[in-house]
Amino acid sequence: MSVSFHLDELARHVGAASVDGGRTRPVTGVSSLSEAGPDDLSFLGNPKYASEVAGSRAGVILVPKAFEGRPSEGQVFLRVDNPSYALALLCSVIESALWPRPAPGVHPSAVISPGADVSPAAHVGPLCVIGEGARLGPDVVLEAAVHVGRHATVGQGSWLKSGARVGDYCVVGSRCRLQPGVVIGSEGFGYEPVGEDIRRIPQVGIVVLEDDVEVGANSTLDRARFSRTVVGRGTKIDNLVQIAHNVRIGSQCMIAAQTGIAGSTVIGDRCVLGGQSGVAGHLAVGDRVRVGAQSGVLEDVPADAFVNGTPACPLGLERRVVVLSRRLPDLFKKVDSLAAALDAVAKDAR
Amino acid sequence: MSVSFHLDELARHVGAASVDGGRTRPVTGVSSLSEAGPDDLSFLGNPKYASEVAGSRAGVILVPKAFEGRPSEGQVFLRVDNPSYALALLCSVIESALWPRPAPGVHPSAVISPGADVSPAAHVGPLCVIGEGARLGPDVVLEAAVHVGRHATVGQGSWLKSGARVGDYCVVGSRCRLQPGVVIGSEGFGYEPVGEDIRRIPQVGIVVLEDDVEVGANSTLDRARFSRTVVGRGTKIDNLVQIAHNVRIGSQCMIAAQTGIAGSTVIGDRCVLGGQSGVAGHLAVGDRVRVGAQSGVLEDVPADAFVNGTPACPLGLERRVVVLSRRLPDLFKKVDSLAAALDAVAKDAR
Amino acid sequence: MSVSFHLDELARHVGAASVDGGRTRPVTGVSSLSEAGPDDLSFLGNPKYASEVAGSRAGVILVPKAFEGRPSEGQVFLRVDNPSYALALLCSVIESALWPRPAPGVHPSAVISPGADVSPAAHVGPLCVIGEGARLGPDVVLEAAVHVGRHATVGQGSWLKSGARVGDYCVVGSRCRLQPGVVIGSEGFGYEPVGEDIRRIPQVGIVVLEDDVEVGANSTLDRARFSRTVVGRGTKIDNLVQIAHNVRIGSQCMIAAQTGIAGSTVIGDRCVLGGQSGVAGHLAVGDRVRVGAQSGVLEDVPADAFVNGTPACPLGLERRVVVLSRRLPDLFKKVDSLAAALDAVAKDAR
Repeated sequence: MSVSFHLDELARHVGAASVDGGRTRPVTGVSSLSEAGPDDLSFLGNPKYASEVAGSRAGVILVPKAFEGRPSEGQVFLRVDNPSYALALLCSVIESALWPRPAPGVHPSAVISPGADVSPAAHVGPLCVIGEGARLGPDVVLEAAVHVGRHATVGQGSWLKSGARVGDYCVVGSRCRLQPGVVIGSEGFGYEPVGEDIRRIPQVGIVVLEDDVEVGANSTLDRARFSRTVVGRGTKIDNLVQIAHNVRIGSQCMIAAQTGIAGSTVIGDRCVLGGQSGVAGHLAVGDRVRVGAQSGVLEDVPADAFVNGTPACPLGLERRVVVLSRRLPDLFKKVDSLAAALDAVAKDAR
Repeated sequence: MSVSFHLDELARHVGAASVDGGRTRPVTGVSSLSEAGPDDLSFLGNPKYASEVAGSRAGVILVPKAFEGRPSEGQVFLRVDNPSYALALLCSVIESALWPRPAPGVHPSAVISPGADVSPAAHVGPLCVIGEGARLGPDVVLEAAVHVGRHATVGQGSWLKSGARVGDYCVVGSRCRLQPGVVIGSEGFGYEPVGEDIRRIPQVGIVVLEDDVEVGANSTLDRARFSRTVVGRGTKIDNLVQIAHNVRIGSQCMIAAQTGIAGSTVIGDRCVLGGQSGVAGHLAVGDRVRVGAQSGVLEDVPADAFVNGTPACPLGLERRVVVLSRRLPDLFKKVDSLAAALDAVAKDAR
Repeated sequence: MSVSFHLDELARHVGAASVDGGRTRPVTGVSSLSEAGPDDLSFLGNPKYASEVAGSRAGVILVPKAFEGRPSEGQVFLRVDNPSYALALLCSVIESALWPRPAPGVHPSAVISPGADVSPAAHVGPLCVIGEGARLGPDVVLEAAVHVGRHATVGQGSWLKSGARVGDYCVVGSRCRLQPGVVIGSEGFGYEPVGEDIRRIPQVGIVVLEDDVEVGANSTLDRARFSRTVVGRGTKIDNLVQIAHNVRIGSQCMIAAQTGIAGSTVIGDRCVLGGQSGVAGHLAVGDRVRVGAQSGVLEDVPADAFVNGTPACPLGLERRVVVLSRRLPDLFKKVDSLAAALDAVAKDAR
């Protein structure tokens, strides 16, 4: 993987207010202050790392305008308003170069059902399978080995990575992004005991991803028993997350890796769920709720709460309980010595 | 996705005892009481939602025979013995319509090894790969991009969804159902330190799924070190579950999403494991055991126990400990004040 | 699946010091003492199972040289230095027979970009996709439906199982082993709030697996925001593990199933992470650290520590807290009775 920027290009991409120093060799990488070499760009994104700037071997460093240090011999400082934002601007340029949107067209190895409706402005990569009645909007990108099931829809500009799978009848909105191995529309886990057997309850609903939803690698979203499992506009889901049937997630949520949400639970807007957290079924979680990593939510949560632990409770209480739990060895001893002291007092009193 | 039922069809499918009202327009969806519109069918499955019936805009509602309400203007009630069961009957009809069993035959893009034995009554979809010596029974359905390894067997009527993978030599029984991305027969995680290195222990066993086993999306079941990893008849496994090498799971178990079972553990019949739970290796878990969500089982569990927490202990004890833990702030204060009071008493006594 | 060894072959493969008994029928399976039948080989790997030898129906049993028992009628003992190691030797022979390294060559159904560099000594199975500029070294094996992205590299002798995916520009070292469904190089979960929206931060780094790394089924390793996510030489990762962007894992670590490591965390060499454990982001975990199953590491961990629980703390403390927590019902009662006793003493004293 190679990137290459001359200093004047860099300065332009990051909107540099001033340039301290000069160089003719191109910059060919981006790295942290401690790991960067003379051909790398680095950045001071957080004031606590300011002391690392002086020792950094980076060829070019993005620093805040007011940063007091000076570049070392052969090094360049690009002074910007916000180094972290400036870096994101540069990374966008790099991304466009390294991951150009592939040209429209269908790879000859793809298997497209006769009844599918593929926009001429969509890209369908090698070994993709598009089922009967499926619709792909303009600017859709299916990398390799993507499967879009029968009568499923993928909206304009969505980008599905290698091996992503969209089940029959499911709906992916516009500008969504599915990482490799994502499964949209597996059957919900619905069974009922019938005598000695466990009978499957047919799952005839769908999954709807609204616009601008992103889903991480190998995450699984189950179709509804009937009706819809819904992920709201702009919500981002990390890797290996499980969303069960009939769950409804609001807009602009962030759901970290390996989280699981059980059936029919409703999550509000702008919630943040920490990694490996779980939410039991048939619950209501309000808007802007935060759930700590590894927590287990077993009851409804009101809007704006921050809950933690298993079973999850308000963060403040949970933290105190953890701290006090670790003092249990002392507490047991103290109670024992109190008992002994009381015995002594009682004996004296007799 | 579209379904369409006229009222007389609906009444027949759900076994309606009586019909209150009439309509000529077909019903085209199924939804909950609160979300249904005039063209949807809904149902009163749980008496606690009875008050929602009056306000529901559903065109048709399945209600218990004895339900006292009356349909609103233009609405129809179908009176049945058990609305939930009646709905399942209807969903089976819908499923048959929306997911008809594909016709026998092999898609021309599938790659079938010369030595594979594919029943003429099996369906092999696009871009499937069938290894040498593999056997597919009659009525087997492989959707798209399914891989059945060398000398693996898939029994009659099993249905493997997009991207499911069955490893070499593994055995899938009859009427099994594998969701997208399932991995049957990955290598067990077996290593031994040899000097400074970690050496892989060859994993030459297989995985056997007995009849009527279902496995959820992206779950992984490892082949045995030798001999077999076994999932017993009728057991249902949810999404993103990990089953390690040499595990043996009994029949008719329910294993919820993101659960992990470590190597060589034996699980009895009719057990229920909650979501995100874990069972350590080399344990014996008896029949009909229940493990709560997110619990971690670290020792053998006798039959019929319900264990919870990490490390898991009997549910009643675990619940009391959780409740009392939250009262630790009070307990610490109380002990402090007891100590102060005792001091005072002791001082008085002197 | 069938293996077949005559007694003299077995004795040779396991390096038997002596053979007690004889048989002419071949041995066709390997099983545990309790499950083996007359055509199976079994082994006494752990002295605690010594009593099972007498009752075992195994046709051949690997026993320690000094084992005092005698084979039953028709049974053979192979006496060896270390039965467990002898079995591993035999399993290696079995593995070579059942999973022979496939011959070099490219299956006609594979899709190889013109600009890819595939060693003539590599095997590329059916329906694999190799992107432009990708390089496959000699003795590489790609089973079926493996995707190696643009400009990615797979080093000599690495073996990628069905459906493994290596993202664009990523690097897989020599002799690595990727189980089915592995995702190397999905995009890191990086977003920033911009007004009402959540904006994606481009992830333009790569993933580097050093030599001899193994990754389990459906595990996901995210590419770095920039620079590299690294897994060190010889480290083994189990199934369904999540490694976030910019994580750096040292060499010779063992990471059990369903573990998650959040962004930018650095793990030392020879660490062991238990199943379903989690490590928060931006932490430093020292060499040879052990993390218990289901633990949640929320702060830096010094070298050689063994931490457990959530939030993780030293194992000894965590164990005491668990034990004492279960005695909380007694403690609350004891404090109540102390309070009552103190009241009584105080009353007497008045």
